[in-house]
Amino acid sequence: MARNTHVAADTAAPPITAILAKFVAGHPSRGWSDAVEHEAHRTFYNWLGCAIGAARHEAADAALAAVQMLEPAPQASVLGRAEQVDMASAALVNGITSHTFDFDDTHLKTIIHPAGPVASALLALAERRGAGGREVLDALVLGIDVACRIGNVMYPEHYDRGWHITGSTGMLGAAAGCARLLHLDERQTAMALGIAASQPVGLREQFGTMTKPFHPGAAARAGLMSALLASRGFTASARALEAPRGFVQVVSDKRAWHEATDELGERFEISFNTYKPFACGIVIHPSIDACVQLRAQGIAPEQVERIELRVHSLVLELTGKKEPKDGLQGKFSVYHGAAAGLIYGRAGEAEFSDEVVNDPRVVALRAKVHATVDDAIHEDAALVTALLQGGRRVEVRVDHAIGSMLNPLTDAQLEAKFDGLVAPVLGDARSREISAQWRTLASLADMRELTALCRP
Amino acid sequence: MARNTHVAADTAAPPITAILAKFVAGHPSRGWSDAVEHEAHRTFYNWLGCAIGAARHEAADAALAAVQMLEPAPQASVLGRAEQVDMASAALVNGITSHTFDFDDTHLKTIIHPAGPVASALLALAERRGAGGREVLDALVLGIDVACRIGNVMYPEHYDRGWHITGSTGMLGAAAGCARLLHLDERQTAMALGIAASQPVGLREQFGTMTKPFHPGAAARAGLMSALLASRGFTASARALEAPRGFVQVVSDKRAWHEATDELGERFEISFNTYKPFACGIVIHPSIDACVQLRAQGIAPEQVERIELRVHSLVLELTGKKEPKDGLQGKFSVYHGAAAGLIYGRAGEAEFSDEVVNDPRVVALRAKVHATVDDAIHEDAALVTALLQGGRRVEVRVDHAIGSMLNPLTDAQLEAKFDGLVAPVLGDARSREISAQWRTLASLADMRELTALCRP
Repeated sequence: MARNTHVAADTAAPPITAILAKFVAGHPSRGWSDAVEHEAHRTFYNWLGCAIGAARHEAADAALAAVQMLEPAPQASVLGRAEQVDMASAALVNGITSHTFDFDDTHLKTIIHPAGPVASALLALAERRGAGGREVLDALVLGIDVACRIGNVMYPEHYDRGWHITGSTGMLGAAAGCARLLHLDERQTAMALGIAASQPVGLREQFGTMTKPFHPGAAARAGLMSALLASRGFTASARALEAPRGFVQVVSDKRAWHEATDELGERFEISFNTYKPFACGIVIHPSIDACVQLRAQGIAPEQVERIELRVHSLVLELTGKKEPKDGLQGKFSVYHGAAAGLIYGRAGEAEFSDEVVNDPRVVALRAKVHATVDDAIHEDAALVTALLQGGRRVEVRVDHAIGSMLNPLTDAQLEAKFDGLVAPVLGDARSREISAQWRTLASLADMRELTALCRP
Repeated sequence: MARNTHVAADTAAPPITAILAKFVAGHPSRGWSDAVEHEAHRTFYNWLGCAIGAARHEAADAALAAVQMLEPAPQASVLGRAEQVDMASAALVNGITSHTFDFDDTHLKTIIHPAGPVASALLALAERRGAGGREVLDALVLGIDVACRIGNVMYPEHYDRGWHITGSTGMLGAAAGCARLLHLDERQTAMALGIAASQPVGLREQFGTMTKPFHPGAAARAGLMSALLASRGFTASARALEAPRGFVQVVSDKRAWHEATDELGERFEISFNTYKPFACGIVIHPSIDACVQLRAQGIAPEQVERIELRVHSLVLELTGKKEPKDGLQGKFSVYHGAAAGLIYGRAGEAEFSDEVVNDPRVVALRAKVHATVDDAIHEDAALVTALLQGGRRVEVRVDHAIGSMLNPLTDAQLEAKFDGLVAPVLGDARSREISAQWRTLASLADMRELTALCRP
């Protein structure tokens, strides 16, 4: 075996560690368009709902039980639960819950789920410091920009190699965001990025286990601790990201350096963030979307004799399970997704419970759903036809599923998603109370006003 | 750029995660030779001295200041200091200090420094649980075996690529050791290894900064937390080490699977552990060794007119600084090392202080040291000649420097090294008190008896 089988070292890489540190430390507060500012609010709100929604999942129980073995000081909230733990542990657990349902945000250019690592670290630190919403949003936009730009430098090679890119770039985003929130200077911010660069988290082999959502959680914790260390004078290489034996060259053979700096401070990667409307694999989304539209047209399950789906071949390859037996199998059944969409008008985590998957009404409708492959239909499209009693025929064509870049969730839909996640955990009233505040997060004087609402 | 430039995935890898987990959970206590048992004691004792020795270094101050921001519970000791912190933070800080002087142990087959990650995690956990010496030594031997075997699977390709292999295998050793100490079963131990596999720590680009010793510290913490998580039911892939998108294949193109399992339970990697006698790069060691021997023969600096070193070319390439100005430069000066060896009979961290490097007596002798390259001389050898007043000529030939596999430190030399590190921090009496116990560590009922001695 040759000693070096990977591509040659690039000794002429630009100083991206220093450039990004200067950007994070020096970019003006609220230095972006209204559209970016609005997307930052949406990103935070969507992340918050996901984290609260999974608060009682067994992964959260297990992680919290382990953290309690450290007897942590009550510095920051575990979202959706009564417990408070030290801020590093809060970043870990909230990062885990935010990704547990695979329902969080997606930067589609890299399939990074950026809020998990970045927002989890920021809220824990902000809560501890009593920081306000403006500071958190600034740090969120800048932290996500760093993580996703480094993702752009390396994607897809880094991901193809087997890294779970959310956790293996997320520690950089969390470090950048926390450095900003701590008001670190350019030099200390570079050190925070440098310390974080030594701690990528995440292997794709873990998909299907609790360690998948552990990745954004551990990345959040690593980034937060890196910023705390830098704030106390801990040092790292000032070229940790770009040097021949630095982060990017060690974990990726693709090194599109310009992606780190092109239009820096003008184009913000958070603009490309999207939010899933349904708690399942993205290929089912067009079919569910169409069935939700059928319901909105007044069609009730009892009228339906047959539902026909025309979909891309990938849909049946990945999610062709005709008779799912439990919630997890339901996530791999386009038939179940379609039935849930028509009956409930949504397909959140609750619609993929064991109970719903085995509900006789759902089972009966699912049996009436039939799917045909048609590769003239794009992956994010579907053609759905309902044949009703009496011979009536209703067709819905979805060209771009709801939640995609070309058809993003509206704010109202995001609120419905939030409520679907949060109301079962904190109750309807509290869910509404939090939702009443999300658009004005920037003016919140102290994030502890918000986290107090996120505990039962 | 091609999507996949690295070597093809190996889908037929043996189930090393399961095999190693079974080994760690099931191997009998003290299930090895007296020689292995003795080496385990030496490894722990050497590690302890290094950690205490650097307790007051600025890296320790900075790391501890960051950790204190979490308001940690006083569960475990920061070695050599009064502070106690939660066990995960203690693993971090003690792992940092143990590697700060670059004076810790070396598994020469892989240049892993195995005790840093493994012992740092184990002592913190043992202190919290009141575990005894027997359990800790069992866990140390098994944990180091796991880390170094995975190192053997991947070395040198993984290291050449830029990973600091101590931290990027150490989290596995720490997880294995802590799983053993927690009495996890085979299944839970596999989960601990799996969770740890997602958290490699360390880039070689960080060499020369505080983040270098951060690597074993962060690996210790990651391994400990992985075992705690597994003990509370957190799950990971049961094939996390060997799967195509698992740890080894993601971070290395060399995959010598057999190294993970050959002679498992018969050959122990801790047998190949070595201990540095001198606090500097290993290429200077033969010259220092020779000068220490000259001193032992009764030669005093005042008698010396000239010292001639014949050394391998690498020695002058790496450590040819003729007139070092401070302690750090002294570590890159074979001239300084030789002078220190003759004057003090040792070259510990104290002999690489700014003070000693600028001491007129040292400066004067250093000026009399001359080096010649001779590539007939091996890297771990040196030929040193002292020309004395009156024309006498004394030659010392070192074939294998003290501290190498073929000429290991004696126990007495290890004790002298320990004292040189610990006495300046805890005082002579306490240093001797700890040293009086190291050979009987296995019979210590409660590790807290030891850690109490390690605080001022």
